Amino acid sequence: MSRLASLPRTLFANRVSRLSFAGKERNRVRRDRTMAFSPSAESLPSPSWKNDKSAAALVRGLREAVESCNDVTEEDLSSNKFIDLLVSGSHVGHVRPDFAEALVKHGKLEAADGYALFSKSEKGVVCFDSENRYASSEEKTRVVAEVFEKMRELSLIPGWRSEMFPVVSDEGDVCMNVERASASLLGIKAFGVHVNGYVNSNSSGNSESKVLLWVGTRSKDKQTFPGMLDHLSAGGLPAGMAPTICAVKELAEEAGVPEKYSEENVKSVSCVSYRMFYKECVKRDVLFCYDLELGESFVPKPVDGEVESFELLPLERVCEIIAFEPGRFKPNCVLVIIDFAIRKGIVTCDMPGFPELVKALRR
Amino acid sequence: MSRLASLPRTLFANRVSRLSFAGKERNRVRRDRTMAFSPSAESLPSPSWKNDKSAAALVRGLREAVESCNDVTEEDLSSNKFIDLLVSGSHVGHVRPDFAEALVKHGKLEAADGYALFSKSEKGVVCFDSENRYASSEEKTRVVAEVFEKMRELSLIPGWRSEMFPVVSDEGDVCMNVERASASLLGIKAFGVHVNGYVNSNSSGNSESKVLLWVGTRSKDKQTFPGMLDHLSAGGLPAGMAPTICAVKELAEEAGVPEKYSEENVKSVSCVSYRMFYKECVKRDVLFCYDLELGESFVPKPVDGEVESFELLPLERVCEIIAFEPGRFKPNCVLVIIDFAIRKGIVTCDMPGFPELVKALRR
Repeated sequence: MSRLASLPRTLFANRVSRLSFAGKERNRVRRDRTMAFSPSAESLPSPSWKNDKSAAALVRGLREAVESCNDVTEEDLSSNKFIDLLVSGSHVGHVRPDFAEALVKHGKLEAADGYALFSKSEKGVVCFDSENRYASSEEKTRVVAEVFEKMRELSLIPGWRSEMFPVVSDEGDVCMNVERASASLLGIKAFGVHVNGYVNSNSSGNSESKVLLWVGTRSKDKQTFPGMLDHLSAGGLPAGMAPTICAVKELAEEAGVPEKYSEENVKSVSCVSYRMFYKECVKRDVLFCYDLELGESFVPKPVDGEVESFELLPLERVCEIIAFEPGRFKPNCVLVIIDFAIRKGIVTCDMPGFPELVKALRR
Repeated sequence: MSRLASLPRTLFANRVSRLSFAGKERNRVRRDRTMAFSPSAESLPSPSWKNDKSAAALVRGLREAVESCNDVTEEDLSSNKFIDLLVSGSHVGHVRPDFAEALVKHGKLEAADGYALFSKSEKGVVCFDSENRYASSEEKTRVVAEVFEKMRELSLIPGWRSEMFPVVSDEGDVCMNVERASASLLGIKAFGVHVNGYVNSNSSGNSESKVLLWVGTRSKDKQTFPGMLDHLSAGGLPAGMAPTICAVKELAEEAGVPEKYSEENVKSVSCVSYRMFYKECVKRDVLFCYDLELGESFVPKPVDGEVESFELLPLERVCEIIAFEPGRFKPNCVLVIIDFAIRKGIVTCDMPGFPELVKALRR
């Protein structure tokens, strides 16, 4: 049978009402569906969402999961809740007014002419090095570090990590590096690396191969998102490290994948981003997405205790969990997995709401 | 040798200056490079852009090609050059003030109470069916068709196509259908389907397979973009047709790919969008992206005369043409091909400017 036989008749059938994320149809679908989590690969689907209405409900559920990572609106950013942060004229972040005041107060040099490292412009934005006296990123990094060290001692920058993150402009240029703990206080972009570890399986018996995704369950002792579902591996990208090298390192540390195997097989494929409130600051994350195909015999091992177990789930089932069992997955994994499901042809162009979902993955 | 050996040392090395699309470095790269177009698969690369600086130049060139499809700014849309168009309260498009006046003038019903189909709200936006009297998309489609038929006779809607396009809200809901010729006059989203026809080749002799892309040369007699490079196949998506069915149809019509083969192998993978000026109107296109893997022996045939010849080019070479030989490709193909090169790991997370490039593909 050709694949087309199971396609929805039309992309745009009878959808006149405004898309409502908590709409009636979704509630209906929730009731109709067995919501118990069934983590074995056997328990799976002839997905009931392969018709117009349930495909719409699936996409709506996926979209809602994406939106839950994007509670910061354009209005929030242009309101007086946040002040734009510029470095030598380039926009890099959003700071709370009280933190802006602290930057201006403590960002004063001992120089004879009293040049202020951080200053407030007439337009009310906070500028670092407004006169561009520190031409290189190294110089900027050094003088900012002095200011931040002082602010750390005054407990104005809590949770010190002793790890450097790059400060990147909206156009993608690296201005300087700063202590990781200041990233969300500055509202700068922070970069991470996520790996979809997957298996192409023919075990289902029919001619079409199934994509199975390795899903971890986070340790119940983790401070962040304990017990939630997670990727094969993921981690923050420190300043100066290439994303692919970071991906290989994390795969070894978190899932026991041999470095040589990852080096030869991990593949750069995409990028997603989101913008959410975190302790009243703006957390802006950019996640580099990688795919790693694994053999059916390979079983990942939790190495560093971040994850307590791994399970192999059909990608359709993973999409159902994201769409219809909100709160199961660590929130930001959702964007990377939806992007994967789109590239693998599981969430398709024929589904209503598809283009809006694709766009929503990048803020 | 492992792949990592050829990776740039760091994603963010020494890039302090603001990204400039017509910058010095790019000009330097242009001079250094043989710019002659060499369309044979043999003529190809150990791409010189596999180090930090030339990777940055490549991404910059790709980004510039994307931006050339996006000359409409947010400022343009919020200025008095355009008026927002709403259907029953949902935003669907942007119209020029003179066309807005024409809609209001001719959108009057013969009903006793003088209900206006198109009206201008206090906020200055144009509303269709502000009281939502026509609940179904079919009713809306019918009454709008009467108005547009009148406007056609008055030459207010030129280039009549007798083909219906959906009117889709910003949230993805279909409000009604309208004549295709009115799409850019209304500034509504218009949908298309593009197919990357590719070959996985091992002919280069080494262990890594190369991705080769089929590239068409448009007929010199075509009214639009004569002689430019193009996809294997692409076309506008009419109202009521599923994108995958459209892709299969276009593949048969434009490239002679047997329908049965396309039905079984064409794969939904992505979506890109852009926003450009077209005859002083806002053209907003959403392109559904498909991949079709073809055997090395298959040669596409120009069937309907849209394309005069097809050539198989290494994907790296295609990226170089897009980045360093602007104007060779039909502009909107560029977005679909860059998305393909990202998914195939040719343009990677390790390249400076990567996240901004990925985001720029969706407006």
